[in-house]
Amino acid sequence: MTTPYRLHEDRLLPTDPGVRAIARELYHSVRDLPIVSPHGHTDPSWFATNEPFSDPASLFIIPDHYIFRMLYSQGVPLEELGVPRIDGGWTQSDPRKIWRRFAKNFHLLRGTPSWMWLGHALHEIMGIPQKLSVATADVIYDQIDAKLKQDDFRPRALFERFRIEVLATTEDPLDDLRHHRAIKTSGWGGRVLTAFRPDNVTDPEHPRFARDLPELGRITGEDVGTWDGYLAALRARRRYFIEHGGCTSTDHGHPTAHTENLPQEEAAALYARVSTGQGDAHDAERFRGQMLTEMARMSVDDGLVMQIHPGALRSQNPAVTGIFGEAKGDDWPSRTEYVKSLKPLLNAFGNNRDLTIILFTLDESTYAREIAPLAGHYPALRIGPAWWFHDSPEGMRRFREQVTETGGFYNTVGFNDDTRAFLSIPSRHDMSRRVDCSFLARLVAEHRIDMDEAQAVAADLAYNLVRSAYRL
Amino acid sequence: MTTPYRLHEDRLLPTDPGVRAIARELYHSVRDLPIVSPHGHTDPSWFATNEPFSDPASLFIIPDHYIFRMLYSQGVPLEELGVPRIDGGWTQSDPRKIWRRFAKNFHLLRGTPSWMWLGHALHEIMGIPQKLSVATADVIYDQIDAKLKQDDFRPRALFERFRIEVLATTEDPLDDLRHHRAIKTSGWGGRVLTAFRPDNVTDPEHPRFARDLPELGRITGEDVGTWDGYLAALRARRRYFIEHGGCTSTDHGHPTAHTENLPQEEAAALYARVSTGQGDAHDAERFRGQMLTEMARMSVDDGLVMQIHPGALRSQNPAVTGIFGEAKGDDWPSRTEYVKSLKPLLNAFGNNRDLTIILFTLDESTYAREIAPLAGHYPALRIGPAWWFHDSPEGMRRFREQVTETGGFYNTVGFNDDTRAFLSIPSRHDMSRRVDCSFLARLVAEHRIDMDEAQAVAADLAYNLVRSAYRL
Amino acid sequence: MTTPYRLHEDRLLPTDPGVRAIARELYHSVRDLPIVSPHGHTDPSWFATNEPFSDPASLFIIPDHYIFRMLYSQGVPLEELGVPRIDGGWTQSDPRKIWRRFAKNFHLLRGTPSWMWLGHALHEIMGIPQKLSVATADVIYDQIDAKLKQDDFRPRALFERFRIEVLATTEDPLDDLRHHRAIKTSGWGGRVLTAFRPDNVTDPEHPRFARDLPELGRITGEDVGTWDGYLAALRARRRYFIEHGGCTSTDHGHPTAHTENLPQEEAAALYARVSTGQGDAHDAERFRGQMLTEMARMSVDDGLVMQIHPGALRSQNPAVTGIFGEAKGDDWPSRTEYVKSLKPLLNAFGNNRDLTIILFTLDESTYAREIAPLAGHYPALRIGPAWWFHDSPEGMRRFREQVTETGGFYNTVGFNDDTRAFLSIPSRHDMSRRVDCSFLARLVAEHRIDMDEAQAVAADLAYNLVRSAYRL
Repeated sequence: MTTPYRLHEDRLLPTDPGVRAIARELYHSVRDLPIVSPHGHTDPSWFATNEPFSDPASLFIIPDHYIFRMLYSQGVPLEELGVPRIDGGWTQSDPRKIWRRFAKNFHLLRGTPSWMWLGHALHEIMGIPQKLSVATADVIYDQIDAKLKQDDFRPRALFERFRIEVLATTEDPLDDLRHHRAIKTSGWGGRVLTAFRPDNVTDPEHPRFARDLPELGRITGEDVGTWDGYLAALRARRRYFIEHGGCTSTDHGHPTAHTENLPQEEAAALYARVSTGQGDAHDAERFRGQMLTEMARMSVDDGLVMQIHPGALRSQNPAVTGIFGEAKGDDWPSRTEYVKSLKPLLNAFGNNRDLTIILFTLDESTYAREIAPLAGHYPALRIGPAWWFHDSPEGMRRFREQVTETGGFYNTVGFNDDTRAFLSIPSRHDMSRRVDCSFLARLVAEHRIDMDEAQAVAADLAYNLVRSAYRL
Repeated sequence: MTTPYRLHEDRLLPTDPGVRAIARELYHSVRDLPIVSPHGHTDPSWFATNEPFSDPASLFIIPDHYIFRMLYSQGVPLEELGVPRIDGGWTQSDPRKIWRRFAKNFHLLRGTPSWMWLGHALHEIMGIPQKLSVATADVIYDQIDAKLKQDDFRPRALFERFRIEVLATTEDPLDDLRHHRAIKTSGWGGRVLTAFRPDNVTDPEHPRFARDLPELGRITGEDVGTWDGYLAALRARRRYFIEHGGCTSTDHGHPTAHTENLPQEEAAALYARVSTGQGDAHDAERFRGQMLTEMARMSVDDGLVMQIHPGALRSQNPAVTGIFGEAKGDDWPSRTEYVKSLKPLLNAFGNNRDLTIILFTLDESTYAREIAPLAGHYPALRIGPAWWFHDSPEGMRRFREQVTETGGFYNTVGFNDDTRAFLSIPSRHDMSRRVDCSFLARLVAEHRIDMDEAQAVAADLAYNLVRSAYRL
Repeated sequence: MTTPYRLHEDRLLPTDPGVRAIARELYHSVRDLPIVSPHGHTDPSWFATNEPFSDPASLFIIPDHYIFRMLYSQGVPLEELGVPRIDGGWTQSDPRKIWRRFAKNFHLLRGTPSWMWLGHALHEIMGIPQKLSVATADVIYDQIDAKLKQDDFRPRALFERFRIEVLATTEDPLDDLRHHRAIKTSGWGGRVLTAFRPDNVTDPEHPRFARDLPELGRITGEDVGTWDGYLAALRARRRYFIEHGGCTSTDHGHPTAHTENLPQEEAAALYARVSTGQGDAHDAERFRGQMLTEMARMSVDDGLVMQIHPGALRSQNPAVTGIFGEAKGDDWPSRTEYVKSLKPLLNAFGNNRDLTIILFTLDESTYAREIAPLAGHYPALRIGPAWWFHDSPEGMRRFREQVTETGGFYNTVGFNDDTRAFLSIPSRHDMSRRVDCSFLARLVAEHRIDMDEAQAVAADLAYNLVRSAYRL
């Protein structure tokens, strides 16, 4: 019998033995802190119904765009990975076959964070003693499948085992939050909150805008035919999200960071155009920009923290989107400008000490050049963690190296896992803690910060800052 | 009694013991070389009058935008930090209270270069044995206050203690250089030079342009109503700066790196517009660009080294600028383009072996992509050190990593402290020497350069290159 | 007698002893693998005629723009380095004097890859026991000169000594491939292929476009006065290159990554304009973009791998180009956009599993932001290695750090030396292997990948991926 395959306890810590010892000490001081997950895309129905996850492929492969995009890039058809077609056409429905196909291509993930996230899920959470390969695919499949049938692998049990103190999901304004309400009245103690993501009713180019805008009027009883009615409807849904979903934040996924602060009459005229389908692309961009400022104005009133996630060009490959729908790995970053784009918003609300705007980027060239300088000045501004393509060991390291010297640690807000892959949550937070402690350990070893300070910062980055920034 | 708090002698050196030993040897070989500070913003009156610095807050907090911007970003009002209001309205005038407020928030600077610069000033220069905290704020305040009353903490004594061989300040063309003249005739041996920064009379969008242009005519007796008279006036003031201020360099702080090389008639027509307030933003940009080429032309004649500092958007927060004035931490970098922008200037003068143009950037993405390739070709071009937001351990390390392989060491020009914080000068130069020696040590340890070469380069980066590049 | 100067066997490996041991093991496992050089600019006549190289200056200095650009940037006239003038005017013709001038300035290359490439050529290939300096210039010159007269330093002998399995040169469509045909029929076993680089007949702004387009018609017998005839002519030359030059790839050096996929009638109209000199700059850009899509379409048919090298602004210094001609060190990178630019091409062919498009960049800010995300999705797309200014230890390290986490290892294609300096080929490939193994060693030491995986990846990066990607 071979030795079980185990993750190394010092993974991701610095290689120099002296620095590693410091990092290990810092990491051990934060390793077991609760997980606060203020932004992500898990499905609240998991926690409302507490049904078991169905099978290994449905849990690990089919919904994970990190995995299927990499395999697709190397010639594996998405159908073979079980990604459902819009038209209901054939895709592989045998989870074991999907799993085998994945196992055969697992080497493609070498050097990516998915390799580590999956390794953590398999070996730490599932307790699998073999490394995944073609040879072990079936035996691992069987072990996972058996575990998923156990009660202690149901969503709520895992939530508790993962020591999640609070988990935020993301819903759009039309959502009735039935799952959040069900969780609340279920008697289960897990804290699952919603976040308010209004792109479908604030972005005229959103594929659901034309359909969802009237619906927003209907469910709020407001006249969305007028600018004032539209704003009132949004305010109403924000209140609803706060009351029924424990919401503490909004989220805005715009193609750019463009903002506007138009006079209200001009904004109303712009709304009249875009809400009736008469606006052009320029109107859409200006309207999205105006809505960021309107959302900030509402946040000053109702206290919701604002998250701005700009710069992703989404669903860019028609051959994939047309068959499999949105968000199938064909999204990518683009060059993003912040200092001029945010000026209207920051002129209006940047100096407000009661407002928190958390800014994300997919354009790392802006960390040191734009984002850290802005956040190192405006009281309202905070810097979101390394996002999406950059939520990885090298990406998180570059984030700290490029943000800290101008933005400091205290204008950052801890970690976001931003995931729909529930079983990756512990690994992602653990990765973040390891990388942050490694960065701090280097500062200590280079005598740029003292050990007692590093310990305080480590706890702030792992736990305190996210709670205060997101008002949790 | 507790052990006095001391800076570690190996701070900022690499963590690997073998590489650290190499770095230490290199650093020790340059540690005590004189400081040559060719570009900065200290106040020449300090050295002309040699009056003692008044109090700890006035010395360390009130004028240091690195410090007050970070505290402002976390909610501390600038009034509480004693930053003076334009309207003379209330700001905190008790330096001890300002100092306490700072001490309470000192943790916000963890991981920033200011934490290290201030630590150096307190512990190395002031000899303070306690670490700054709320608990020690008063006792440290008292110690600093007492030191500042001693003769050996007056400006000239510190200048000598810091082993400053030459220090350049920055003045605009209307300055009468009275302080520089006073230093020259004072009998004191310290070498304090001026640098010629004409933005207020070359940038039509400069807030003082309209007011200062006629004054330029008045003090030179030239007719600034004409292009030729205007150029003659600038030539006259350059001569004045050379003769009365020991000036060896000019400095140009433009929003972009745009240059023009217009036919003189066209330049004259452009001047006619912008000098009479009839130009638009496009004219202003072109005029600034033309003036860089005109300045290069004058430099070929009078030998002044040109510094171009493009890409800073200054005083961008009206809520702060309106109350506290310019340069209150609301400046930020922007994306900056060099290869196309500089082409007119470089076509005209880039191949001139007698001209030196030192190029800076706040856009690190241009180090390897644009600046090193340009400077690795044009005889006139040199690369200025990591600037402003990037004048930090990580920033300086990225500079060497991204510039050296294409630009080499010998197209760089040593270090600029660029500071108005006099007591940070030794720390800043020391930081630069430590970071450069650390970079060189890695090259030695990786056998990419030999130790004798690294020693020569270390001395060149710390001392020789700056003297030759700035013609000091 | 002094100890001979030797390169250190651990050069470029990580400094931490534990990580270095891992890196050394990985490196030793790939060090002696054959060299596969799928893209470069060596002269096929060297291998066709097998004449000895004439002298040290002609071999190492005169053709090496990395070297003469650095010396030029520090004031050495190109004439003094023997770079030939277009007008046949005087340049230094005594190779020994050129060599001495170089030796005197060798320190300018400290910290650059050229310092290492040259060191490798001198000490490993030529066996020179002295380090280059003014003092040793002559003795080294004499040793090299003597070696070059030996049969085992002729091109074919070096090719074999270097263990080159295959070497691709680059020719334009008008080339008759006489040297490749001569090699083929010579009985010598070395595999020297051509690559198809059609910029001179696909880029209306290419200096030879107007002259070469009719010639393309003449040699193919096609009517290049029509769009269809023009395309047929290109197809014919591709076939010729495949049949007579063993060609497996095309190469496209465009100023941007712009692509178009116009309806054929529109493309024909555009061709009618640009082929008759009536197009403007916008037409030229669109035509180049259209031709990338046309080339992809042809590749689907004939199987040639496409390389796109965008973003170099070439021959930018008129004072140099006017006297010495093109490619004299006055080329530089520019900011380059990929996600929007490539969309027409990728919409048309990005999902094609039988097509390979290898994408290069000189804009490192796109590695993690654009190129890795694109290549991590599209089956047709692969990521070319760090290119030109970035083909250096730091550049290659940044490439892996920024590309791997999203793009993986398997969307990269091994190493390109891209050189016209034949004697630098072993050093360049060795450098790449050392840097890649160092990166892998860190991943192993940080427990981000297992040692057996790293060994497999090391061999893939050094040998397997390049062969499969380039279909060699």
